[in-house]
Amino acid sequence: MPAARYTVLSGGVGGARLVLGLQHVLEPGALQVVVNTGDDFEHLGLLICPDLDTLVYTLADCANPETGWGLRDESWAFMDALATLGGPTWFRLGDRDLATHMQRRAALAEGLSLTAVTEQLQQRLGVTTPLWPMSDDPVRTEIHTADGTLAFQDYFVRLGARPVAQGFNYKGAETATASPQALRALEAADAIIIAPSNPWLSIAPVLSLPAIGATIGRSNAPVVAVAPVIAGQAVKGPTAKLMQELGIEAGVVGIARHYGSLLDGLIIDRQDAAQQDAIEALGIKVAITDTLMTTLEDKTRLADSVIEFAQRLRAGDTR
Amino acid sequence: MPAARYTVLSGGVGGARLVLGLQHVLEPGALQVVVNTGDDFEHLGLLICPDLDTLVYTLADCANPETGWGLRDESWAFMDALATLGGPTWFRLGDRDLATHMQRRAALAEGLSLTAVTEQLQQRLGVTTPLWPMSDDPVRTEIHTADGTLAFQDYFVRLGARPVAQGFNYKGAETATASPQALRALEAADAIIIAPSNPWLSIAPVLSLPAIGATIGRSNAPVVAVAPVIAGQAVKGPTAKLMQELGIEAGVVGIARHYGSLLDGLIIDRQDAAQQDAIEALGIKVAITDTLMTTLEDKTRLADSVIEFAQRLRAGDTR
Repeated sequence: MPAARYTVLSGGVGGARLVLGLQHVLEPGALQVVVNTGDDFEHLGLLICPDLDTLVYTLADCANPETGWGLRDESWAFMDALATLGGPTWFRLGDRDLATHMQRRAALAEGLSLTAVTEQLQQRLGVTTPLWPMSDDPVRTEIHTADGTLAFQDYFVRLGARPVAQGFNYKGAETATASPQALRALEAADAIIIAPSNPWLSIAPVLSLPAIGATIGRSNAPVVAVAPVIAGQAVKGPTAKLMQELGIEAGVVGIARHYGSLLDGLIIDRQDAAQQDAIEALGIKVAITDTLMTTLEDKTRLADSVIEFAQRLRAGDTR
Repeated sequence: MPAARYTVLSGGVGGARLVLGLQHVLEPGALQVVVNTGDDFEHLGLLICPDLDTLVYTLADCANPETGWGLRDESWAFMDALATLGGPTWFRLGDRDLATHMQRRAALAEGLSLTAVTEQLQQRLGVTTPLWPMSDDPVRTEIHTADGTLAFQDYFVRLGARPVAQGFNYKGAETATASPQALRALEAADAIIIAPSNPWLSIAPVLSLPAIGATIGRSNAPVVAVAPVIAGQAVKGPTAKLMQELGIEAGVVGIARHYGSLLDGLIIDRQDAAQQDAIEALGIKVAITDTLMTTLEDKTRLADSVIEFAQRLRAGDTR
């Protein structure tokens, strides 16, 4: 029997941590990732792809673990000089990170797709796990707030995710073509894993592409999510704050209700063990483990748990 | 009597040195510079303006004196990372210098002219001497060689000025509109100074704009050049090599013949004093001084000589 194949839907930091763990425990060829591009934006004439870059940098072992974005051992001479010249500094681009964006701009200008550009970047940095941008067409997450609709990076970086969110729009999703490679990865998957990324800001843009939603819907593979909250708190980012603003209980049950029938299983942290029954009452199986990923050991242990749970669900073993 | 006004035609390094000297010895408002943009080119999606930047950086006292381009105390993290990603490294852009080009790109994308962008850059770096790009429209110097026609930076940087030059083309000069500010600066000048820049690569592109040539031709102001060669050698760059390739005697007489009736006076180095008669036989007055500019004192001394010579020519004193 060939090794089971896993396809992950992922945003940035949390997703990248789980993908790194899965890459360590799975055999080559068993893992593919469909990556959110709803955070992408044009800045200084460059296309910035935060989630793709966080994944590539994390798998290449050159990500900055402190910030969750950008490169380790980064320098900031460009940014300092740009400030002197009165340029925009709210979105920080390190000297080395800038090369990624410049090289991507050049390749896109030559007519390459975002998928091809990402493959080039991966090759250069030695990252072999396929990372598929959800689409080569622009899909841009917007946040509706009391003060109007904000582009994702305006909301997230410039305004520090402080505005109260009322809803979301994934602009361009109606007309964007889903990545054929992403669709094939989902079709071929023996299990589909939703990373512990923000459901509204990182996973929903991926699912907003009708062909991706339909492909997952047609699949017989179990769909397993790792809860992006522990004891009502997000490990990183505004997930819990967003849930409160949307009037959703900020906890694993709220996550389970949000994903609903999309999920076959949800992995929750030991701290949330008491919620198991409430989640299973929704028809979603639960696995309980430690979901906080700090060390590489945490990541591989969680990856093992995800695989073991997915295999159980696949085998119809629903203990 | 108001102070005499001087307008300089300038390329990069040699021109910038003389302009720095003139800025030190002239009163505010007495000096303007018309700058070659024939070296400008698009690289990595950015408009690079080597001569404008060398002038701004030199006058802002942040130029790199070793290289003749870029900034002092520069770092190269971007360039190193770009090399890792397989990007082009033949044209080196320092981390801080890159901010200049990025900010210029952003301002041009907003619809500002190169003139307005240059004024912004000057303001930010505290450079008050007006520097006027010869045109806001692209004029691109090309070098005809045995191996075909080369764009300026391909010839100059990528190929290290090694190909044998057979002639030049200033592409776009036929249709480009000369800078109105440059024309006004030339009209208002009591003396026009041609900097010790390469006559074919730095000054000819400026003169290739018909309105600039015509304005200088109509002017009653003396036109004074500082010879860009000393004892048959260029201080920097391929001037002497070019002259040999073009079949011109590589010395101050060759320079005088090239400029011909455009010049009222030529300033040559003491080492070339023996050439005075041959140049004056062409109807061009000669002043002899030390033209090598290493220290700031060299620059201000040469600037004083230029002004004194221009004033003599203006007064009709042709000793």
